[in-house]
Amino acid sequence: MTEVFYKPQGREVELFLAAHKLKMSVLLKGPTGCGKTRFVESVAEKLGLNLITVSCHEETSATDLVGRHLLMGSETVFVDGPLTRAVRQGGILYLDEVAEARPDVLVVLHSITDYRRQLFIERTGETLVAPDSFMVTASFNPGYQKGLKELKPSTRQRFISIPFTYPLPGPEAEIVAHESQLDLKMVKHLIQIATQIRNLKELGLMETVSTRLLIDAAKLIGEGIEPRLACRTAIVEPLTDEDEDRIALTDLISMQF
Amino acid sequence: MTEVFYKPQGREVELFLAAHKLKMSVLLKGPTGCGKTRFVESVAEKLGLNLITVSCHEETSATDLVGRHLLMGSETVFVDGPLTRAVRQGGILYLDEVAEARPDVLVVLHSITDYRRQLFIERTGETLVAPDSFMVTASFNPGYQKGLKELKPSTRQRFISIPFTYPLPGPEAEIVAHESQLDLKMVKHLIQIATQIRNLKELGLMETVSTRLLIDAAKLIGEGIEPRLACRTAIVEPLTDEDEDRIALTDLISMQF
Amino acid sequence: MTEVFYKPQGREVELFLAAHKLKMSVLLKGPTGCGKTRFVESVAEKLGLNLITVSCHEETSATDLVGRHLLMGSETVFVDGPLTRAVRQGGILYLDEVAEARPDVLVVLHSITDYRRQLFIERTGETLVAPDSFMVTASFNPGYQKGLKELKPSTRQRFISIPFTYPLPGPEAEIVAHESQLDLKMVKHLIQIATQIRNLKELGLMETVSTRLLIDAAKLIGEGIEPRLACRTAIVEPLTDEDEDRIALTDLISMQF
Amino acid sequence: MTEVFYKPQGREVELFLAAHKLKMSVLLKGPTGCGKTRFVESVAEKLGLNLITVSCHEETSATDLVGRHLLMGSETVFVDGPLTRAVRQGGILYLDEVAEARPDVLVVLHSITDYRRQLFIERTGETLVAPDSFMVTASFNPGYQKGLKELKPSTRQRFISIPFTYPLPGPEAEIVAHESQLDLKMVKHLIQIATQIRNLKELGLMETVSTRLLIDAAKLIGEGIEPRLACRTAIVEPLTDEDEDRIALTDLISMQF
Amino acid sequence: MTEVFYKPQGREVELFLAAHKLKMSVLLKGPTGCGKTRFVESVAEKLGLNLITVSCHEETSATDLVGRHLLMGSETVFVDGPLTRAVRQGGILYLDEVAEARPDVLVVLHSITDYRRQLFIERTGETLVAPDSFMVTASFNPGYQKGLKELKPSTRQRFISIPFTYPLPGPEAEIVAHESQLDLKMVKHLIQIATQIRNLKELGLMETVSTRLLIDAAKLIGEGIEPRLACRTAIVEPLTDEDEDRIALTDLISMQF
Amino acid sequence: MTEVFYKPQGREVELFLAAHKLKMSVLLKGPTGCGKTRFVESVAEKLGLNLITVSCHEETSATDLVGRHLLMGSETVFVDGPLTRAVRQGGILYLDEVAEARPDVLVVLHSITDYRRQLFIERTGETLVAPDSFMVTASFNPGYQKGLKELKPSTRQRFISIPFTYPLPGPEAEIVAHESQLDLKMVKHLIQIATQIRNLKELGLMETVSTRLLIDAAKLIGEGIEPRLACRTAIVEPLTDEDEDRIALTDLISMQF
Repeated sequence: MTEVFYKPQGREVELFLAAHKLKMSVLLKGPTGCGKTRFVESVAEKLGLNLITVSCHEETSATDLVGRHLLMGSETVFVDGPLTRAVRQGGILYLDEVAEARPDVLVVLHSITDYRRQLFIERTGETLVAPDSFMVTASFNPGYQKGLKELKPSTRQRFISIPFTYPLPGPEAEIVAHESQLDLKMVKHLIQIATQIRNLKELGLMETVSTRLLIDAAKLIGEGIEPRLACRTAIVEPLTDEDEDRIALTDLISMQF
Repeated sequence: MTEVFYKPQGREVELFLAAHKLKMSVLLKGPTGCGKTRFVESVAEKLGLNLITVSCHEETSATDLVGRHLLMGSETVFVDGPLTRAVRQGGILYLDEVAEARPDVLVVLHSITDYRRQLFIERTGETLVAPDSFMVTASFNPGYQKGLKELKPSTRQRFISIPFTYPLPGPEAEIVAHESQLDLKMVKHLIQIATQIRNLKELGLMETVSTRLLIDAAKLIGEGIEPRLACRTAIVEPLTDEDEDRIALTDLISMQF
Repeated sequence: MTEVFYKPQGREVELFLAAHKLKMSVLLKGPTGCGKTRFVESVAEKLGLNLITVSCHEETSATDLVGRHLLMGSETVFVDGPLTRAVRQGGILYLDEVAEARPDVLVVLHSITDYRRQLFIERTGETLVAPDSFMVTASFNPGYQKGLKELKPSTRQRFISIPFTYPLPGPEAEIVAHESQLDLKMVKHLIQIATQIRNLKELGLMETVSTRLLIDAAKLIGEGIEPRLACRTAIVEPLTDEDEDRIALTDLISMQF
Repeated sequence: MTEVFYKPQGREVELFLAAHKLKMSVLLKGPTGCGKTRFVESVAEKLGLNLITVSCHEETSATDLVGRHLLMGSETVFVDGPLTRAVRQGGILYLDEVAEARPDVLVVLHSITDYRRQLFIERTGETLVAPDSFMVTASFNPGYQKGLKELKPSTRQRFISIPFTYPLPGPEAEIVAHESQLDLKMVKHLIQIATQIRNLKELGLMETVSTRLLIDAAKLIGEGIEPRLACRTAIVEPLTDEDEDRIALTDLISMQF
Repeated sequence: MTEVFYKPQGREVELFLAAHKLKMSVLLKGPTGCGKTRFVESVAEKLGLNLITVSCHEETSATDLVGRHLLMGSETVFVDGPLTRAVRQGGILYLDEVAEARPDVLVVLHSITDYRRQLFIERTGETLVAPDSFMVTASFNPGYQKGLKELKPSTRQRFISIPFTYPLPGPEAEIVAHESQLDLKMVKHLIQIATQIRNLKELGLMETVSTRLLIDAAKLIGEGIEPRLACRTAIVEPLTDEDEDRIALTDLISMQF
Repeated sequence: MTEVFYKPQGREVELFLAAHKLKMSVLLKGPTGCGKTRFVESVAEKLGLNLITVSCHEETSATDLVGRHLLMGSETVFVDGPLTRAVRQGGILYLDEVAEARPDVLVVLHSITDYRRQLFIERTGETLVAPDSFMVTASFNPGYQKGLKELKPSTRQRFISIPFTYPLPGPEAEIVAHESQLDLKMVKHLIQIATQIRNLKELGLMETVSTRLLIDAAKLIGEGIEPRLACRTAIVEPLTDEDEDRIALTDLISMQF
């Protein structure tokens, strides 16, 4: 596997490495598609540690994290969940979209993320102590979830938090060009479009255009799709189902291409 | 099996093939019965790939997509779900009516639909990497679901989106005639009726008449059912239970037959 | 078994047979106790096909329709649900009170009721193709459910719909007399009562008197129960718990007997 | 077992026997503790049929009524539920407090309570035909449930309905005296109290005093408990937790004892 | 085991013994910590009967009360729940905080608490008849649950009800002194505090101070904890989290110590 | 394991030891990160008793606390839950964030936390009596849960309650310095910041800054992270997602560093 491409935007790498050394947990805050997952993959690689990712959702239970009994032969065997596996290996547990999990589920993280660094496996009566290299990190999108899905204070105060946002136009152009292999001049038109959409507060978009969508548009253009159609398919339609918003976004695009 | 009949309405085939080549996911947006399923079947055929369809509903769980343990003999065996099967075969996973699934369930698609192209099977601890031919596509009806069932941005921004609508009168007549084998003159009366109903914004219909309903009416006529009765049975009654709407629709029909 | 007694009210038999020939699904719309079930039993008999009835309710799950794994000996065996059985036998699946099932459950019918005529059994990975004789039919009471339990458009547009209502006084008298063996003169008084109650829009009845209730009253009278008491027991009390409505209905009855 | 004591209040026995002969289902409507259960036990005894009682509650599922698979040895065996047992034996199924069951559960009764008299056991694929002696009866308290828990029309219209209420003072005194063995003079004071409470519409009681409570009070008096204390314990406290209502009821009682 | 200490407050023992003799069920109504549990333990001891206690909660299911099938070896065996055990032994079933159980669950008690004295075990098809000594008793706190969790009339009218409250100052002092072994002079200060708090209607306390809390405070004082601190720990903090209420209560206490 | 570091703030140790001797249960009330867990670990150590911690959450069931049957070989074996284990060992059960558990679950604690000191294991029919050393303790954060998640009075009155809060500036500085090894002068700036934030009632923070967050900030500074960045990462971002609050907090910090 080749090295993960990640372009630092500030001191996030330095902070993450300090937190790991100090056995703290880290919460990455920021919108969809701004590079949080790539960041955590790249620092895990740098630290030489296994990254165990859990995509959190409302169905995620404490049991899913810790493990469950399964019938094997005629015995029930306890099969470790991702949290337990990460503790045993001394790896990094990455809780993607942590606020999607029900707040109460995260309570199982409390003893492993404070000074005790212990995991109680209630169903087997076992207590694990985390090796020094073990760490918990999580991602959270404070934007469209505000007031709906929030982490409760007793969980949040167990994490130091690093804010993420979309890169500045210069670095964003570099990232899009690197990922799509499209020439920089074309990419800059896309960046222009993104900047304008992100400033358009009048639209009722749930989220604005992400770096990921720009890369998709750039790739479609690189594949020979006409730029306006590429932008409509990769930017306009993924952002909205409303006719008025569609027209406004399409107008913006036709000013660039 | 004979080839699937699909009449392109625009550049949707070109876009889908580009997305497949670029390993992107595609969301098909459009109303009931406008041909989304036929489209995806026809492009899967063109690509020579297996199409694995999941009809999403509120009961669909992450486990249904990924797989579950079943007792076989005296051992529990992990039986792949449709997502896992599609990944192993390098086929196309088609999530029909994706917004019917609870938003949190779709989180399991995140790592397989971004640059990682990995599927974590938490219950077995296995990680699959998708072959190049694997692709996720989904359908979504933004009409009557608006505000009720929506995809969340972090899911939507993982898909480029192709909008679908009912065909223009000319091509729609061709499709209805091809499917029903009814003569084109009769079919054109049906198309007239459809055009008028689709413009009737005063009625409180949840959805308007689809190409599918026109084909049904045409087939009943071809079978010898009197046209007015065929239209009442295949168009009016499926669209409404309200007496006023029924009368308005019946009036429209009696102007054609 | 003797032949099912069913007295056609219009062209519903002709329409149903055409739909069966054309491999369409049929929805029977109408109030409680107007003869929908008898109709479908009589046409299934006419077609010489097995009728597999599912009484839908809120607990009905997709699994109930398709089938489930059961432990037999030390193996789990997949036991077909009624939908799967109907597909394998090429019979008629009858979903009685289909709107009682949660809308999302019906999504499993989509691929079997459109041009694909395929059933995906997700839990075994099997795909069945329906024989030509297979058909889906369903009943639905649009009256008291309005706004509460509705079929969603993408399901409704998969069915052509035949409306049912209570028979006209003449045929209804014939049906009641045939079923109860009560003499026609007495029956006509019952039909009078029914006609009056059905026109009484002032009462807050959830549903009005059905042919079924008239047959019950007629049978009680035939068994020697005094007509007023029979009507109170079989008509008034089943329709309402409100004292005012009871008095109004009792008054109507005492004008006939 | 000695014969069940039941004192008819009207023609309810005659109606029930006619319904049984005609293979109809019967719903007993009336308040708590007025003798519905005793009535059904006494007519079952008269008919020489087994009475199978199900106390309905919100947890009652269709499976509870029909039956379920259980593991016996290394095979799963289908164990009949009370409905299936009643059908096989040709007994009377008594659904006590039928409105407590979720309306959708009762849908399983539809085919067995109409002219088909068939029970489809979906989980085994079996179809039972009910013997002539089989009957369904149910009880329902329309009082305090009004608007909260109601039977839906398609279920109600499958039952003829017999209304029950508290007996008239004379017969009620006889019943209380028979059950408690208290002398009739004392009992008449209790009946006086009951009559007054039942007329006191100002109190916010959820239900008024039942014959059952009068029997309890009478029994306590017969056991030597001072009449006022007996009435407070068996009548006042079971009816209310409100201080004002308590005082009003206690005042009524002290006018008799 | 030494005899349970219980100091009667009125004629509750007499009433309970009469109810037992008459095969009635008894409901104990009263606030937290006023001695309901001790009462029922002491009368069970007096009667020489086994007391089987169920602490009711929202999860308590009918199955928990009656029993369930468990896999033992390769057979499923029915394991009696506490209700079934109490019936077989002829003991006293005590449903502590009965209103916490969902109302519908209690329906399983109906046939065993009326004249039938029968328990239908639906899952095995067994019918048990209760021996004469069997009795059901329950506790209920009508105070803070008012309007939230109520017993439904058809359940309540199956119980005669004995109201409980905190003892009068004299007996309460005796009880606290007996339980804590603290000298009576100190105890009287505690009783003073309790009397004042119980009269303080201005505070928004969910419940007022119970005899149990007084005993706790007395015991802490006996253990050498300074009285004010003991009262704050055992009385103020358990009653409220509001600063204003805390100050008011602390003021009351500092007037005594 | 080295001894747990805990700096007493008042007489909490004395109270806890008295409660243990008197077989009372103790509730620790206070905000996130003020040292409740450390306190209970240090007193358990002092008493030489095993501490069994349960992190409560909404999924915690009575069964999780008491134990459940698991299939081992071909027998089901009852596996003790943490409550049952604590009772058998005579250890201390610590219910962390007890208000997160559904109120009804805690009902299982009633008989073990009052004078009976008995645990009824309903699923096995066993009754355990707690050894003298057994104790229940729990933590509760009355701050942000007010009105949402509360313990019900019948549970609360089974616990004496010790309030906790953040330490005074002097001791808090000592604790932060001890934990972070940062020099006291730097630490005092952090304490200044904390004091100011805790007094800022205008901000809509769900919780204020805890001692835990101060320690995190101090550790990051000790690791060479620039103080402002350390404070932003460990104090500002964990407390809020609102831009205005962020600016206010950042301003406070820049007045110290």
